[in-house]
Amino acid sequence: MKFCKQVVDTYLKSCHWGENESGSAYAPANIALCKYWGKRDHELNLPMTDSLSISLGSYGSHCTISLSNQDAYVLNGNTMEKDSPFAQRLRDFLDLFRGAAGYHYRVEATNTVATSAGFASSASGFAALVLALQQLHGWDLNPRVLSIFARMGSGSASRSLWNGFVHWHAGTLPDGSDSFAEPIPSDWKTLRVGLLTIDAGRKVLPSREAMNRTVISSALYASWPQQVQHDLITLQQAIAVKDFDILGACAEQNAMAMHATMLAARPPVLYWQSATVAALHSVWRARSDGLRLYCTMDAGPNVKLLFTADCQDAVCEQFPEMQVANPWVQ
Amino acid sequence: MKFCKQVVDTYLKSCHWGENESGSAYAPANIALCKYWGKRDHELNLPMTDSLSISLGSYGSHCTISLSNQDAYVLNGNTMEKDSPFAQRLRDFLDLFRGAAGYHYRVEATNTVATSAGFASSASGFAALVLALQQLHGWDLNPRVLSIFARMGSGSASRSLWNGFVHWHAGTLPDGSDSFAEPIPSDWKTLRVGLLTIDAGRKVLPSREAMNRTVISSALYASWPQQVQHDLITLQQAIAVKDFDILGACAEQNAMAMHATMLAARPPVLYWQSATVAALHSVWRARSDGLRLYCTMDAGPNVKLLFTADCQDAVCEQFPEMQVANPWVQ
Repeated sequence: MKFCKQVVDTYLKSCHWGENESGSAYAPANIALCKYWGKRDHELNLPMTDSLSISLGSYGSHCTISLSNQDAYVLNGNTMEKDSPFAQRLRDFLDLFRGAAGYHYRVEATNTVATSAGFASSASGFAALVLALQQLHGWDLNPRVLSIFARMGSGSASRSLWNGFVHWHAGTLPDGSDSFAEPIPSDWKTLRVGLLTIDAGRKVLPSREAMNRTVISSALYASWPQQVQHDLITLQQAIAVKDFDILGACAEQNAMAMHATMLAARPPVLYWQSATVAALHSVWRARSDGLRLYCTMDAGPNVKLLFTADCQDAVCEQFPEMQVANPWVQ
Repeated sequence: MKFCKQVVDTYLKSCHWGENESGSAYAPANIALCKYWGKRDHELNLPMTDSLSISLGSYGSHCTISLSNQDAYVLNGNTMEKDSPFAQRLRDFLDLFRGAAGYHYRVEATNTVATSAGFASSASGFAALVLALQQLHGWDLNPRVLSIFARMGSGSASRSLWNGFVHWHAGTLPDGSDSFAEPIPSDWKTLRVGLLTIDAGRKVLPSREAMNRTVISSALYASWPQQVQHDLITLQQAIAVKDFDILGACAEQNAMAMHATMLAARPPVLYWQSATVAALHSVWRARSDGLRLYCTMDAGPNVKLLFTADCQDAVCEQFPEMQVANPWVQ
């Protein structure tokens, strides 16, 4: 995290540092309609391509951070073991923000989405943490910088600072100062995201490992950036004119293509379970029966549905266990 | 089939034509270890790349052909409707071989593998038909020419004229005269193929349509030929030194990569069913428990297992419903 530290320091050195009692924030999880898949820098979490997401409203992470004598991390009410991989990851991340005073932090986070199961809990978690840090210290950083900070914790966290549609620019600079997300203005308030929990357990393979294996070993990865370029334009146009079928079809195809690059990795990466495939076929059957329903998936077994508010009852009938996120309402 | 006719005529014009009472032949189905996926010519069934298969021994097609007043096709004991797509396809194919006398044929075929469910029934069917035609008319064509003829019925039929390993050369000539298969000499008699029937029903999407959609619309298809080139070399080396783990891993990865190109097609093509994914995970779990077991799949929901004779009991225990093919024994 040496390079990350240098970058963070350049932003924080000219910052006001206060000592509020605590900082608290909420950030929504997000699901990419055009996926982030592949890094050009592993330390800074710089992506190969742009990506575009929609936020999950009330599904996300609450985070409270306070000054303390020593670091302590509480996730969903459970104090994390110091040596657990996630505690180490969090400690490394917080090392970037201890300032000249060398602060220690108590972090309490609660996820309203399943943790580490492809519901983007690390995205919302790191975004909420960065927002809480800003509040704790009274920094006056703009959202772009906060997005850059969140990105260092988890790439997709860069997109979790806003409601609605968010565009993460890959950027080209080696220090990542042009690799931040920003919201896409839209008042498309009827869009909904349905969450189908196929398996809420921890993933067999963390997504960063799946991503790296794909980039290194999948012959099909070479064509991924070209696909993203095409899909980004399609999605931006669909958002501009609120064309749901174009948006849904493009998001679904982009997700399938991402899973395709994994399947061609060596050895293959398959996050899907039986119930995943059953859900995909259900979506496609419902659509061929006339329901305007599309789906997307992140690097995990769970399926996310895309539909508009007028179809919510019909979709709920097909998938009674679905949880519904309104991307504009936390 | 105009160009096919010209090509066939050049081979048949110098041929002896007799009139035996009937011709009968058997051809095994085959499963590609390195897949045929994508055509460079749709009429002649010329492939984009080489492919390499293993034959399925006693799983294949018996075909008897005799001269008749009018065409009649009997498949698995059922007379085919004249206007059915398959009858039309068969009629078009037979049109290539009616000779100056304009023969009509009665064709009786029996498949010992599920028809049109990704068990290569059309491969063994067209191969057996070509062999039976040669016998009926007493042609003296060499196997390369018969492979070319079979290819015109169904691409992978070019590989169904032999037991064991078979290599189909893509060729480069526009008339396809260098696009034929030939056996790979090997006495690796302990290799076995297990057939898991996930769904014996007819495929939702015929594989030629899936193939064409993939070539036209899948951004990932561009890297497929490169993958094949790599896998062909790996498989040839594995066959030469009888390295089962290299053969199995390569075949499995090649199959996953083929399905990956389909998944990235627009709209996506997914032949997998819930039980397909369950079977894949079972294979991978068994392998991580130490069983030397790999799998491959064609364009359908069914799974084929690769193992050696010494592991057959252990594999049967995991998959009691499996049928076992010995690639060298019809």
